[in-house]
Amino acid sequence: MKIGLDIMGGDFAPKAAVLGAIAAQKALSADQKIVLFGDKAQALPFLTEEGVSPDDFEFVHTTEMIGMGEHGTKSVLQKPNSSISLGFQYLKDGKIDSFASAGNTGAMLVGAIFSVKPVPGVIRPAVATNVPKLKSGFGIMLDVGANADCKPEVLAQFGMLGSLYAEHVYHIQNPKVGLMNLGEEEEKGNVLTQSTFPLLQKSDINFIGNIEGRDLFNDKADVIVCDGFTGNVMLKLAETFYILTLKKGFKDEFFDRFNYEQYGGSPILGVNAPVLIGHGISSPEAIKNMVLLSRTMVETQFVDKIKEAFK
Amino acid sequence: MKIGLDIMGGDFAPKAAVLGAIAAQKALSADQKIVLFGDKAQALPFLTEEGVSPDDFEFVHTTEMIGMGEHGTKSVLQKPNSSISLGFQYLKDGKIDSFASAGNTGAMLVGAIFSVKPVPGVIRPAVATNVPKLKSGFGIMLDVGANADCKPEVLAQFGMLGSLYAEHVYHIQNPKVGLMNLGEEEEKGNVLTQSTFPLLQKSDINFIGNIEGRDLFNDKADVIVCDGFTGNVMLKLAETFYILTLKKGFKDEFFDRFNYEQYGGSPILGVNAPVLIGHGISSPEAIKNMVLLSRTMVETQFVDKIKEAFK
Repeated sequence: MKIGLDIMGGDFAPKAAVLGAIAAQKALSADQKIVLFGDKAQALPFLTEEGVSPDDFEFVHTTEMIGMGEHGTKSVLQKPNSSISLGFQYLKDGKIDSFASAGNTGAMLVGAIFSVKPVPGVIRPAVATNVPKLKSGFGIMLDVGANADCKPEVLAQFGMLGSLYAEHVYHIQNPKVGLMNLGEEEEKGNVLTQSTFPLLQKSDINFIGNIEGRDLFNDKADVIVCDGFTGNVMLKLAETFYILTLKKGFKDEFFDRFNYEQYGGSPILGVNAPVLIGHGISSPEAIKNMVLLSRTMVETQFVDKIKEAFK
Repeated sequence: MKIGLDIMGGDFAPKAAVLGAIAAQKALSADQKIVLFGDKAQALPFLTEEGVSPDDFEFVHTTEMIGMGEHGTKSVLQKPNSSISLGFQYLKDGKIDSFASAGNTGAMLVGAIFSVKPVPGVIRPAVATNVPKLKSGFGIMLDVGANADCKPEVLAQFGMLGSLYAEHVYHIQNPKVGLMNLGEEEEKGNVLTQSTFPLLQKSDINFIGNIEGRDLFNDKADVIVCDGFTGNVMLKLAETFYILTLKKGFKDEFFDRFNYEQYGGSPILGVNAPVLIGHGISSPEAIKNMVLLSRTMVETQFVDKIKEAFK
């Protein structure tokens, strides 16, 4: 297995990415190798410092870099030798089994959708994220930013993608799928959620109905379905609270589980290979967990499960 | 001035409403009177208990009641003698200057829109709510539930309604109006926010651009514009955090300001009279503040300001 990792992406690149790769590598078995995409010369000092041999990794040396603020589509097209563009080229060609980056989210989305491409039958891939649950564990919310406007058919597919992810990657049995809405009753909602409700109802997944903003952290749903606009707004609002509790010095096991570091990034669900996007501020710990989640997605043959379900 | 108050609405009616009215009455001047809509026989014992003369209030005795779970439109039509229906009849006829209830939100919306009616030029009235700001004070968010689907023209008008409310009722000079979005850049957003941006930009209000979920509690915007779906989801999510900090025993001045009781309910902005909707769980303190906010809205001639602006 070859796990692709962009070491040029993220606010603390390449250091955080290289240190994260080193940490992850220790947890991998002999037949699992991390392939680092980036400027090898920049990476080597960190390996030396940690007493790690460069031979523990494979390198794809890249000379271009896509900055965090660059336009997604344009940058991927204009910088074919960037770590992100080359990563997707390798992923498309089967030279790596997964690709992860804490870099430019737009470029990652464009790369995933236009080079690796959606699984046949999937209208729009979605970005999923983990949200902590009050009692324990976490739920999966999607979409959180890839699709600002969704059609009901797209939203209903998110339910399926999220359900398969929860089941196969996190081993949640028969995951409960809820539709984020402004009220619980079936008839409540905007045009989008009202039209999505019957589609989810007749699908094969365990659809438990509408949920509300107040249900994000309780156990009603394992999978929370929403359009990317709503998901983005909710996620950023929830993050505010986490940051606030940190600032105010409130110590609590639940709030601790907001820490993005432990979740290993956000997968793009519905494309032909595991692709993971890390938080821009990713620490070595976050990168490590992103590599390990990549491995799990490859090991569980998650993409095959999606292909099977959408056949 | 005559301030209408439904004493049959809310989870703790009529007791909480009557006690709230008694507390509010003490703060009113001699020419300001509260008109109570509801079952007088049920109200009298609470007045007696508090040593308050019924003559301090006016009563409009009602025999019907609209329950919290009833369908808004149907209930208003089918129960013309309910406290909510009669309240709106009095408001429409000019026998009271404002009307407030902690009862059925749907019925309140229907009553406001179909009996008091929108101010000419206002496409859709909006429900506004207060959100606490980290530093101090609070912002105004609208819409929070009256309009699940909005057209750009409607959303742009919310900016104007919210700006006028912040300026005239809360005396915020030149209020900063932000558009809730998934990114700060002008081109970011879903079709709705992308189309609303230029409309807000060319309006006369102090539009400061897009804001994100993380900006709800900071000082970027005094007025937060969003469709009712997004507003409802955000509000319920934010409430969760407040409840959580209470449960976990975190004491903090900022979290304390989440307490809905102090804000006096949510006004329906853009109709021809001040109409206020209280939280279903309204306490006497919340009801008192709702009456006092009603007074402020009448005193500041807020509705005239709206009429003037939309002429």
